Amino acid sequence: MNDHLRASIRDIPDFPQPGVVFKDITPLLGDAQAFAGAVAAIADHFADRGITKVAGIEARGFIFAAPIALRLGAGFVPIRKPGKLPHDTEAQDYELEYGTDLLEVHKDAFGPGDVALIIDDVLATGGTAAAATRLLGRLGAEVAGIGVLVELGFLNGRSKLPDIDFVALVHYDEP
Amino acid sequence: MNDHLRASIRDIPDFPQPGVVFKDITPLLGDAQAFAGAVAAIADHFADRGITKVAGIEARGFIFAAPIALRLGAGFVPIRKPGKLPHDTEAQDYELEYGTDLLEVHKDAFGPGDVALIIDDVLATGGTAAAATRLLGRLGAEVAGIGVLVELGFLNGRSKLPDIDFVALVHYDEP
Repeated sequence: MNDHLRASIRDIPDFPQPGVVFKDITPLLGDAQAFAGAVAAIADHFADRGITKVAGIEARGFIFAAPIALRLGAGFVPIRKPGKLPHDTEAQDYELEYGTDLLEVHKDAFGPGDVALIIDDVLATGGTAAAATRLLGRLGAEVAGIGVLVELGFLNGRSKLPDIDFVALVHYDEP
Repeated sequence: MNDHLRASIRDIPDFPQPGVVFKDITPLLGDAQAFAGAVAAIADHFADRGITKVAGIEARGFIFAAPIALRLGAGFVPIRKPGKLPHDTEAQDYELEYGTDLLEVHKDAFGPGDVALIIDDVLATGGTAAAATRLLGRLGAEVAGIGVLVELGFLNGRSKLPDIDFVALVHYDEP
């Protein structure tokens, strides 16, 4: 199945900037069987972990996190860019190539006993996933794992993650 | 079921600007049963329409469109803000309170025979949904319907939509 997933991801050279090869997952999303297979594979990896909330990282993370939440019988929590969430938020900064950015989540998104799964489309440098893990931990959630469709292994993002269950369906060892 | 959905949406006064009462759907999303029920209700409304692609409008539209696509056995297509999609795009402008903005979609997102469903979280003035309908029509897709969780009826957005199957699960007749 993962060969079929890989075949439905295309390289876009020089996006979003010269020298970067962007992994475009939209052909995979548009292929009903590939998309359903990817959602099922990530969700089923965490099926016996007692997940109560699946947190998706804006914006492409929402596309996988929402159906994974439904498949696991869990609620969905959006992790958003600054200023997008209307209620009281907790924020966590993370490093970009130049400067820093913030992730925000509603403070009341997790209650005692919640077990969270963090979902994004791609693990690149790992900065966003690591920040999301810290953010949810500060709110008292137990973070049981991180799931992504694509891992850009050559950026070594996994080294930034805490000792936590991590799954990626498609790996790239070079750009 | 729709009473339960309504009870899990909260008012946030003065967001994103003074005088606006924002309908915050994050409590609904975090409630696994409410979220699953909303997705099922929208998807099942369009179950016999031969939908092949479900297009979600960035960003909250993704949260409903992705699981609705899976439930209908359809592919998912992101409709995004300018500059986010990496491949060749078609764009459609729409009016904001002050000025205009653009929606973009990949030109190759639809093929001959595709039947599209457009999904967003909220129908407000209707400008975004109407622009999305025009955009997909220009790419040759048959747009079979529009589905949203919340309709702000007092903004009369439905009058901007073409003669098309429209469903909203929760209606507000006043702000």
